[in-house]
Amino acid sequence: MDGCIFCKIVAGEIPSYKVYEDDAVLAFLDIEPATRGHALVIPKRHAENVFEISEDDLEKVAVVAKKLSIKIKDVLQADGIRLSQSNGKVAGQDIMHFHVHIIPRYKNDGLSANPTATLQLPQADFEELKNLAEKIKT
Amino acid sequence: MDGCIFCKIVAGEIPSYKVYEDDAVLAFLDIEPATRGHALVIPKRHAENVFEISEDDLEKVAVVAKKLSIKIKDVLQADGIRLSQSNGKVAGQDIMHFHVHIIPRYKNDGLSANPTATLQLPQADFEELKNLAEKIKT
Repeated sequence: MDGCIFCKIVAGEIPSYKVYEDDAVLAFLDIEPATRGHALVIPKRHAENVFEISEDDLEKVAVVAKKLSIKIKDVLQADGIRLSQSNGKVAGQDIMHFHVHIIPRYKNDGLSANPTATLQLPQADFEELKNLAEKIKT
Repeated sequence: MDGCIFCKIVAGEIPSYKVYEDDAVLAFLDIEPATRGHALVIPKRHAENVFEISEDDLEKVAVVAKKLSIKIKDVLQADGIRLSQSNGKVAGQDIMHFHVHIIPRYKNDGLSANPTATLQLPQADFEELKNLAEKIKT
């Protein structure tokens, strides 16, 4: 969709640190990570939120989120994973293209109950993101 | 699974305020709701977390979460919905049976960035839960 930053990432017009890609789904590292390895999974076809996404795309995104959760936990030795998905600005949605946050959790990671996009997080070191993406990518 | 409170709810050994049920999936209201209409969607077959749940059950749970999100937003006139799913105690998982939180968000609902199971929330008025379940149920 015109003006959608995630559609531009899908189209390759904006670079990203990809960790997974197939015909329908793309996953890449969040550049404002709540924790090390924080990734986003999106459908390539634009849908604003859970109300709009097709069941088919939702199923595909969910399965990729599962596979990546396993991979990220394994590679980064995370102690847990929070999956989170916001719909509407009041729920903390920042980019109006459906996305599932995969937030690895670590003992003593300093996060309270629930870290997500509504927190003000500093931008990551891009070199580290690049290295992380290489590790996570299958 | 023996000793699992959600398996007991599935088996009907513990009562719940159901809002959806089919062969594979059950949804019911959280008795410690973060907001009005806070519901949980679970697979009937026991799986501890996203690492263990079968892809088939995950797809079914995701589609029910979508349908219920639409219904809850509509019936309760919510302004947004947060979907959240925790894996591991460090991520805030309290019950060790896979569950997706559907958390309706309302303008000025008093919640900060992200309400989930790790918050200490008071138990709901059961009469109100019963009435809510009736409204949401399809």
